[in-house]
Order: sequence, then C-alpha cells, then structure tokens
Amino acid sequence: MEVSWEESVTEAINTIYLLFSAYLVFMMQLGFAMLCAGSVRAKNALNIMLTNVVDAVVGSISYYLFGFAFAFGTGSNANPFIGTTFFALKDVPSPDFDYAYFLYQWAFAIAVAGITSGSIAERTQFGAYLVYSFFLTGFVYPIVAHWVWSSSGWLSTSSTQLLFGSGAIDFAGSGVVHLVGAIAGFWGAFIEGPRVGRFDAFGKPVPMRGHNATLVVLGTFLLWFGWFGFNPGSFTKILVAYPSTAGQGNWTAVGRTAVTTTLAGSTAGIVTLFGRRLLIGHWDTMDVCNGVLGGFVAITSGCAVVEPWAAIVCGFCAAWVLIGLNILALKLQYDDPLEATQLHGGCGAWGLIFTGLFAKEEFVVQVYDSGLAGMAPRPYGLLLGGGWKLITSQVVAVLAIVGWVSVTMGPMFYVLHKLNILRISIEEEVAGLDVSSHGGYAYVNHAEEEQPRRYADYVRFRDDDQS
Amino acid sequence: MEVSWEESVTEAINTIYLLFSAYLVFMMQLGFAMLCAGSVRAKNALNIMLTNVVDAVVGSISYYLFGFAFAFGTGSNANPFIGTTFFALKDVPSPDFDYAYFLYQWAFAIAVAGITSGSIAERTQFGAYLVYSFFLTGFVYPIVAHWVWSSSGWLSTSSTQLLFGSGAIDFAGSGVVHLVGAIAGFWGAFIEGPRVGRFDAFGKPVPMRGHNATLVVLGTFLLWFGWFGFNPGSFTKILVAYPSTAGQGNWTAVGRTAVTTTLAGSTAGIVTLFGRRLLIGHWDTMDVCNGVLGGFVAITSGCAVVEPWAAIVCGFCAAWVLIGLNILALKLQYDDPLEATQLHGGCGAWGLIFTGLFAKEEFVVQVYDSGLAGMAPRPYGLLLGGGWKLITSQVVAVLAIVGWVSVTMGPMFYVLHKLNILRISIEEEVAGLDVSSHGGYAYVNHAEEEQPRRYADYVRFRDDDQS
Amino acid sequence: MEVSWEESVTEAINTIYLLFSAYLVFMMQLGFAMLCAGSVRAKNALNIMLTNVVDAVVGSISYYLFGFAFAFGTGSNANPFIGTTFFALKDVPSPDFDYAYFLYQWAFAIAVAGITSGSIAERTQFGAYLVYSFFLTGFVYPIVAHWVWSSSGWLSTSSTQLLFGSGAIDFAGSGVVHLVGAIAGFWGAFIEGPRVGRFDAFGKPVPMRGHNATLVVLGTFLLWFGWFGFNPGSFTKILVAYPSTAGQGNWTAVGRTAVTTTLAGSTAGIVTLFGRRLLIGHWDTMDVCNGVLGGFVAITSGCAVVEPWAAIVCGFCAAWVLIGLNILALKLQYDDPLEATQLHGGCGAWGLIFTGLFAKEEFVVQVYDSGLAGMAPRPYGLLLGGGWKLITSQVVAVLAIVGWVSVTMGPMFYVLHKLNILRISIEEEVAGLDVSSHGGYAYVNHAEEEQPRRYADYVRFRDDDQS
Repeated sequence: MEVSWEESVTEAINTIYLLFSAYLVFMMQLGFAMLCAGSVRAKNALNIMLTNVVDAVVGSISYYLFGFAFAFGTGSNANPFIGTTFFALKDVPSPDFDYAYFLYQWAFAIAVAGITSGSIAERTQFGAYLVYSFFLTGFVYPIVAHWVWSSSGWLSTSSTQLLFGSGAIDFAGSGVVHLVGAIAGFWGAFIEGPRVGRFDAFGKPVPMRGHNATLVVLGTFLLWFGWFGFNPGSFTKILVAYPSTAGQGNWTAVGRTAVTTTLAGSTAGIVTLFGRRLLIGHWDTMDVCNGVLGGFVAITSGCAVVEPWAAIVCGFCAAWVLIGLNILALKLQYDDPLEATQLHGGCGAWGLIFTGLFAKEEFVVQVYDSGLAGMAPRPYGLLLGGGWKLITSQVVAVLAIVGWVSVTMGPMFYVLHKLNILRISIEEEVAGLDVSSHGGYAYVNHAEEEQPRRYADYVRFRDDDQS
Repeated sequence: MEVSWEESVTEAINTIYLLFSAYLVFMMQLGFAMLCAGSVRAKNALNIMLTNVVDAVVGSISYYLFGFAFAFGTGSNANPFIGTTFFALKDVPSPDFDYAYFLYQWAFAIAVAGITSGSIAERTQFGAYLVYSFFLTGFVYPIVAHWVWSSSGWLSTSSTQLLFGSGAIDFAGSGVVHLVGAIAGFWGAFIEGPRVGRFDAFGKPVPMRGHNATLVVLGTFLLWFGWFGFNPGSFTKILVAYPSTAGQGNWTAVGRTAVTTTLAGSTAGIVTLFGRRLLIGHWDTMDVCNGVLGGFVAITSGCAVVEPWAAIVCGFCAAWVLIGLNILALKLQYDDPLEATQLHGGCGAWGLIFTGLFAKEEFVVQVYDSGLAGMAPRPYGLLLGGGWKLITSQVVAVLAIVGWVSVTMGPMFYVLHKLNILRISIEEEVAGLDVSSHGGYAYVNHAEEEQPRRYADYVRFRDDDQS
Repeated sequence: MEVSWEESVTEAINTIYLLFSAYLVFMMQLGFAMLCAGSVRAKNALNIMLTNVVDAVVGSISYYLFGFAFAFGTGSNANPFIGTTFFALKDVPSPDFDYAYFLYQWAFAIAVAGITSGSIAERTQFGAYLVYSFFLTGFVYPIVAHWVWSSSGWLSTSSTQLLFGSGAIDFAGSGVVHLVGAIAGFWGAFIEGPRVGRFDAFGKPVPMRGHNATLVVLGTFLLWFGWFGFNPGSFTKILVAYPSTAGQGNWTAVGRTAVTTTLAGSTAGIVTLFGRRLLIGHWDTMDVCNGVLGGFVAITSGCAVVEPWAAIVCGFCAAWVLIGLNILALKLQYDDPLEATQLHGGCGAWGLIFTGLFAKEEFVVQVYDSGLAGMAPRPYGLLLGGGWKLITSQVVAVLAIVGWVSVTMGPMFYVLHKLNILRISIEEEVAGLDVSSHGGYAYVNHAEEEQPRRYADYVRFRDDDQS
C-alpha cells in the first residue's frame, strides 16, 4: 500500500493549514490570561492567571483521555448524544482524524473554561476552580461539541437525520464554545453573588476597575490574532474545490471568513466607541476592547456562510446587545468581573440567531455540501428567503445549550456552594486571593524588593494595627 | 466549469501563505500599541492604546468601503492615479484578487496611521485623531499604494508604461507605508509643537522617558515577528517557479527576504548598541530597539532584490541615519515622542535609495518579471552596474510621496489646528489624556484600589490644594 | 533546465511549513525576554531584556558569518567534528539547503545564549555578556549541532558511520540546545557565586521574588507557542510520505509531535501544581510555569518518536527532576535566578535518556529512515525492547555535551572572572544594573514622571543621605 502523490500533497497542505490554525487558537489562551489579569484588581492577578494556565494543562490531559472521545468518537455504534471511541487517542490516526485534528479541537476545549473563570473571578476558591474546570472541559463541553459538530450529533449539519432537514449552523462555535462557557459562568457568578463592595447599601454599583489596561489591550489583540485561527481555521481542510465555479474552493471561503470576522469585530468596536461616548461621556478603551470581542463572538457562528456586508450588521447588533446586557446586569446587581456572561452569552446567542437570518444559500451549500453531489438544497437565512427551517434549528440550538449547561453546571456549583468550597471568606477576599492562596502579590516594586510578603505577615500586620 | 487539480493546489498553497502572512502583519498593530504605550508617560497610556485599536477597527471599515478600491481597483477604466473599482469588495473574488489579498492589504493599511500617532502622541485631541486616521487610511495612503503597487500606477513596476523604463521598486513599503506615515506625523507634530516641558527656556531638551521599557521590548519583538509577514509575505504568491534555475522559485526568494530582513535589523541594532554607547555612555535598551526597527524599515523596500551582504550595508547606514536625525531633531526642537518621523521617514527614504543602489539584476528579473517571457532586461542597482534608471525612479518616488502627503495631510492638520480641535489644553496635557478624556489612569495599584479616580476628582483635588 | 510542477509544489509546501515554524521559534526569544524580565527584580529588568535583544542581533551576524557553517557546512571535505563550508551563506541555496533552512537554524541558535543569561542574571557585567554570547552562539553551540544534526556528525543519526549503529536521537534539541545553554549557565553562575543577600549568614536562602508574575505567565505561553515551531518544525519537511501506510507521512508525525509536546508540558505542569502545593502550602503560579517549561524541555529530544502516553511519563518525571534539583540547588547554595541550569540542564538530560528508553521502533524508522529503502533496522527504546544501542548513544551524547561545554565555557568564564570583567561591584548590584549601566529604571510611575533619574543622581542622593 503506497501513499499517492495527490494524497500526500493534500494531507501536507491541509495539515499545515490546520496545525498553524491550532497554534493561533492556542494563543487565545494567552489572550484570555492577559485580558483577565488586566481586568481584575492587582491583588487577584496571580490567581486568575493560574486558572488560565491550569485550563490548558488540565484540559490537555482530560481532553486526551476522554473529552475528544465524547465529542468526536463516532464509530460503528455512533449515537446522537455522546461519542464513544478514540479514548486516549486509541485508533488515531484514523481515516477520519489525524493528530492535527485533535490538537485543533484541544485548543478549542481549553478556551471554554477560561470564559467561565472570568465570571467568577476574584472570589472563588482554587479547589472549586479545579473541580468545575475538569467537569466542564472534560464532559459538559464535549457533549455539546458532539451534538453540533460530529457527524452523528442530533443538531449536526452532516448527520443522516438532519433536524428540521437543516441542522444548526454554528460554524466555529458562538454557541458550542462561547455560550457554553458563558452559561456555566452565569450559574457560578449567580450562586456566588457579587464581590464584596461591588454594590453599596442602596444597590448602587461601585466601580471596581481592573488594575492594568495595557494587559487588556494586549489580551484583546492576541484574541483577535487567535480568532484568525478559530474562525477561518474551522474549515479544517483548505484544499477542497467548489464545483461549477471559476477557481473557487475552501481557500476562497477561508479568506472570506477572515474578512467577515474582521468586519464584525471592527463594526462592534466602532459602535461601542461612539455609543459608550454618548452614554458615559468619555472615550473608554476597555469598553471598545470588549465591544470588539463581542463582535467576534457573534460572527463566530455564521462567519463562513454570510456576506461581508452582513457581518457588519452582525457586529452592529452585537455591540448593542453587549451594551444593553451590561446595563441590565448592573440593574439586577449581577456581578461578572469580565462581563463574560453578557459578552460570550449575549453575543453568542445573537450569533446563532443572526446566522439563521443572514446565511446565504450559495455559501451554505458550498461549505456544508461540497463534494456531495445530488444532495437536496439546504435551508438558509430567513431574511434572504431561505425559510424557517434554519432559524428554527438555531433557536433550538440556543435553548438546548442553555438547558444542558444549566442542568449540569448549575447543580454542580450549587453543591460546591453548599459544601462551602465555592467562595472564599470575606477576609481572604479583602486581602486578595494572591496573598491568601498563592504566596504573595504578582508584583514587587522597587521599594518592596527584598521584603518577604506572605499571608501570615499580612495577617500579623493587621493584628498589630488593631492592638 | 470545473476547478482543476493544479489550480486547486496552487490556490490552496498561495492562500495559506498569504493569509498567515496577513495574520503576522496584523500582529504589528499589537506591536505598535505596546511600543507606543511603553514609550509615552503613564498618564497617556490609555489614550495611545485606544488610537491603535481605533486604527484597526476604523481602518477595517474605511478600507473595505473604499480604501482597497482606491488602491487596487484597476478595471477597464484603470488610471495611473487612483483605483475605481472593487468598492465594498464588489466583484471580489475576481480573477485577480481573492479575499485573502484584501485581508493582507488591510493589515498594511491600518499600520500607517499607527506610525503617525506616535509623532503626535501625548498632546492631541481624540476627535482630531479620528479625523486624520480616517482620511489617511481611507484616502492618502491608498493613493500611494495605487501609484506603486497596482498594475496601472505611474510609479509601478508592472504597468505597461514604466517610469524611466523601470518603475520604482518598493517591494514591501519603505516608502508606501513607512514614509507616508512618517511625513503625515511630521506635519502633525510640527504644527502642534513640542509637548509642554519638552524643551526648557534655553531650548535644551528635558528627558521625557517612556513609562515602561518592558512594553517597548515586547512591542519591538512583536514588530520583528510581524515583519516576517510584511516583507516575505509581500510576494503574495509562493508557488512560482523561476525559469532556468536548479529548483528555485518564489520559495527561494521568500526565504532570502526573511534573511535580508533579519540581517538588516540586526546590523542596525548592533551599530546602535555601540554607537549610542559611545555617544551617551551607557547601553541603552530602548535605543537598540529603535535601531533594530530602523533597520527593518530601511530594508523593507529592497528586501526581495538584494543579497544578504547588501542588507548588512543597509542596516549599518540606517542606524546612522536614525542617530543623526535624532540629534538634528533635538537641535531643531522638533518633538516626536516615538521618533516616528526620524525612524519611519528617515530610514524609509534611505531604504528607497538603497534599493536603487544595491538591487541585483538576477533578483529584479525573477521577482518582477517572472513568467513574463520576452520582456526587456530591467534596470537594477547603480552600484552593481545597473545604470541610473532605477535610482532615478527611486528618488522620484521619495519626492512624490513626500510631496503628496505634505499637500494633503499638511493642510488638514493646519485646518484642525486653526479650528482649535487639534491640540489639548495645557491643563489637560499636564494632567494627562487618560484622566481628562478616557475616564481614569491605565493602572491601579494596590493602595489606590477601590478609590474612584475621575477627572472631576482630580480637578477638585487641585483646587483644594490651591485654596 | 526547468523546475518541474512536482518540485515546485514540494518546495513551496515545505518552505511555508519551515518558515512559519521558524517565525514561531523566533517568538521564543520574546518569550525568554518576558520570562526573564518578570523573574528578576525590577532594578535589573532593562539589563536582562537587552541581553535577549542582543542575543538575537549579535547571533544573526555571527551565525550568518560562521555559525551556520560550523554547524551544517558539510561539503566534500566533511568531517565529524566541525563544518567547513557555507560561510556567509556562500553557495546557498544549494541542493541541500535553502534560505528557509538557515533562518530556522538561526532561530534555534539565538535561543541558546538566552538560556544562559538566566543563570547569571542580576550580577553580570554587560561586556562579559557580549563576549560569552558571541562565543557560545558562534562556536560552542554550532559544534554540538554539527555532531548531532549534520549528516557527517559523529553523534548523528544520518551519517555513514553511526555510533553504536544507532547515533543519538535528539530530535529538536533537549541536548543540543537546552543542555548546552544550561551547562554554560552553570559555569557562569558557579564562578560568579550567588547574588548579594541570596543566602543569609547561616546559608539559609532568602526569597528574591521576580518583580512581575504577569510577565512570567506571558513568557511561558509565548514559549509554549514557540515550541510548536521548535518541535513539530524540526522535521524541516512535511511533504514526505511513509511507505506501506494508509495515507501517513511526515504530516502525521508532525501532528503527533505537537500532541506529545503538549501532553508532556501539561503533565509536568499538573504534577508541579500539586507537588509544590504539598511542599510549600500554596498554589504557586510561577512554579507551575516552570514545571510546564521543564516538561517541554524534556520531550524536545524524543517528541517525534514516542507515543502520546510516553510523553505523559516524560512530563511526569521531568517535574520531579526539576523539583528535586531546585531543592538541591538551595542546599548547595547555588543561585540561578531563572532556575535555568535545573530546568534546561536537568530536564534536558532527562529528555535524552527518556528517548533512549521509550523511542518506538515504527516511529524511529519512519522519522529517520523514510525514503531510504533497504536500511538495516534501527535500535530503539530499551523499555520497548529495542536493546542497549540507542540508550548508550543517548548517554554518550549527554556526557559529550556536558564535557564539551564545560571545557570551553568553563575556562572562558574563569578568565573573565580573573580579569575582573565578569561580575559587577556590590554597589552596582545593590543599586541595580539598570541604573548603573543602562541609564535608569525600566519603569517610571506617575509620581516620578518628569524627574531625571540617573546613576549619578542616585549616588548623590545616597551620599546626601549619609551626610
């Protein structure tokens, strides 16, 4: 058995494309770490960065052992709810999956828990973090990935039994990744309650600014960079020609996806810049960063199947979704230090709906049916004349994801809460997690250098003060 | 109409190469943001980072709507001054341009305004920034790109009517990108005048150190990383074989371009290290960073058509150009917080001249004529025996760019100045832009945490002080 | 002579793969710079970042002029100890090497001196740094690269005269890069002795925390990102099919290498997280970062030839090697600010041994013999039944590297020490290198802004104090 020249070239090209996309997606983990670190107070910077590192290292092992299997393990006994093969990469490389595919999916998996960690930042015990991160990355998320992205999932666009003859289009994961992480974060933040001092006695919010805006900007640009792997990379193969076109193929759609992604994020950033200027009276750098990210989250679902002009519509609405939900969160005294629920949840859900409205027929057929001659025409965007089948599937996807994550992560956080292992004590929260759980602050300035700084010293110092 | 195997492979390979190069170029935006943030005082960090984010998001929309059309819109009614088709990506993908090409050019376009923002940092109203950024990215820069890089431009190397039978070689944009941004910045900084306190009553410069050298180093390395997309990526296609060679093609030249880029920047860095050591008596990290960048700017024009040894010559001279112009700027009391005019302008102009001196015949033919059998031999570097045609074209390019940017951006800045919407007030400048226009400082340290900090408080505090 | 279609496609694909891998490896230089900066005290941040920049720029020139020649210059008069052709890239591109290959090897070369700079941080004269960096990058390291990686090296796996019929497998450089840098650092740190105040009068270590944990996390993730170029990139060609397989080739092995790398680093990170928690009582972010890096260093030798499960074993042991050596270093009062000797030396040596134990026959044959029909079966891992030949070669490689670096770098540091140009004075060390040698601190905060800060002022200030 020899490998043909055509097969070699195809595999080499697709592997380069997929692996380097995976590397970019991995950089989002750094982007998250910097964004989170900059958005919390200095006294909790070490804590939140460690959670980002731990997402990556724990996620590697759990996704290798069973997460990938739950998501993509579709063997002879494939079922629409959960995968059952490829545990610990057994039988990989297979005709369907090579190692590069695993690495790409791994980079997605570790991102989910990072979203959640933003919602519950500055007040969560590290032990609780380890528990939920393992459960979310290893089980809750892979199940949703299986539903939508595996060839046997009940929401999939490629199964033999398409939901409403359509399946839900979530190309790169507005729902599978962002909405999942956000709903998990919502339940954590809701059960824990706001940070100490976040709302005053009258329920009025007290600003708690992140300690370093430079890190927020650094994180935002790194996430943008990584999104070029996340969205255009989700084709997973680039060497696929489209029949009956003048030289087009996945390479065209990959480039277009990079363009729609850029336009949606940029539009959302501009709308946020001027919108927030009107609302709060100054040009807010951090708001613009979050606006850009909201645009990216929203376009992630439909990026491959909409026209560039539609991406601008997507980003425009995403900005207002985020602005509106942030106002609502303050009213409801819901405290999410990174706005993760509003951003990844609100814009993620909007992204799924948007796709149901604006997906273009030609692109849906090329991206989801390419090479499969003789398939029935596919439902596409409602506003482009594609009927109700796709938009209904999208709504079902939103509801299914919110429901599934709520019934799994909600009880989990509640049990941790009841066991008193979810939230830290008030003393620890005031002192900061870094000094109480991580051996000291993240930063040492000139004056402090050479001084030992430990929680014990801190406590002693306070006692001295009071005596 | 089917897409052939050869066409598919060619498109897939070239798209991977071009898209990932575009992603690298995009990282230069982050590099600029970090370099600028670190080089200004802490009180203006939020401001300058927001300008970098805004360059990207505003540039996306303006370049999509008309910038790309002005630059590359060469249809049936092509003219040598301005492009006229492809507005809002209409008719893309075309036989000439796919989406990846647009994305690559977009990443270049947003870099230009970033250069300019360095020159006018720490004293410019944000509204003025929005105006000039939109005008520069959407109109002034695309025109120059059309002249030099489109197939119908009057300075182009690929038009049917070559200037002096040669056209100007500005492979990746020492002139088109860097000189344009620098001349725009020069007029802004010249009209605004120096920052408050930059020169004392006797005209002696007072050091105004940037607030964070780590960010400067971070930015420098990110720019270096991005330059691997900027220069080697500018071939835009890698799968092009060279006739009559032993297995060479664009892949060879792409690699050589990465090498010449590296050598020029490195040489400039070393020369700056020792040169500044002699001049100021210590090893200056920030100077070396700027030296490296000066070398990159200079080699950007000729990177594809010179030998590695010539790149060393290029970098050597670039370092002295930068050192000399910095001394001159101090003498003339010209204040450019990022040295952007000196670095991007001085080294950019030197780069165009250098190419006219050292371009190698073999490389010029391969890079600019490949595939076009039967073309006349091309003029090449004066010092290698290529005659005066190329160097004259290069000088014309320098003059044309300086002239065009001066007659457009100069009056624009002057009008903003006359309308009193260019420079901030002295009070705001002393307080810092972040607190006056952006709602607070970029950083919150432990002691300050939980304290609201707004411009109103700041003003009140100062009033209290004086009462 | 025309370039065939197959040749063009092959060259274009392999060049994209190799160049972008080189760019990733280059990012490790930024990763090192950030890791080092964050791990030293604020007063030495400028100094250590400048050493990282200087590694890159000086390394570019020395590796171009002779380093690459010493390493890979195997012409007609090839010898097993040192290369003798390709000085200043003469005769490149050759049938064996194109520019992209040089750039990839350059990115490796500049990393070596960065490792060493960590060991001798915070107390070394900048002049001494320039000397050893030039000597190490230009001579000591290339020799080892020649031994192991060139086709004529005495430890090589591809020479005609294989050591023990096997040669040493150091796929991406646990030994060639990391052990070399670490042993050089060991001699420097050993001869210089610990930093002032690192151990008290009773020999008890006094904590000297790095000044910025955020930079450490930033550096760690950037190094992880870069390692995807370092390890999977070391195949240098991706378009190589494996005979008698179902569609496998280097693309399969490249993906698997990315996976083994990820698993080893992740495992080491998890083990360090819990191991250090047990030992020191808190969750230490910086320790976990170093643990992850230790896992990467260890897997670098065998990444291409072991199963994913073996990579987990590799990382597990690497974590304990690092933890153990760190305890030992404190006992022996050996002061290495970045733990570079322990991490790159200890885990690097373990990596070479690990490969001798766990290399899988099938993978060894595919990676090292692909395309060479009729070769004898290759020795493989001892624990997988591959006999003693490989493990013996690996041990010889460890001893040879330690010996060679010791007899070259040891005397060099000793001479610098005897000439009093190695270590800075106690006054300078207490004041910090930045203020004594680099013109001021890396950071300026709000309060200090506008104040000139130079060493002269600092000294005057101290004198005033004492009067």
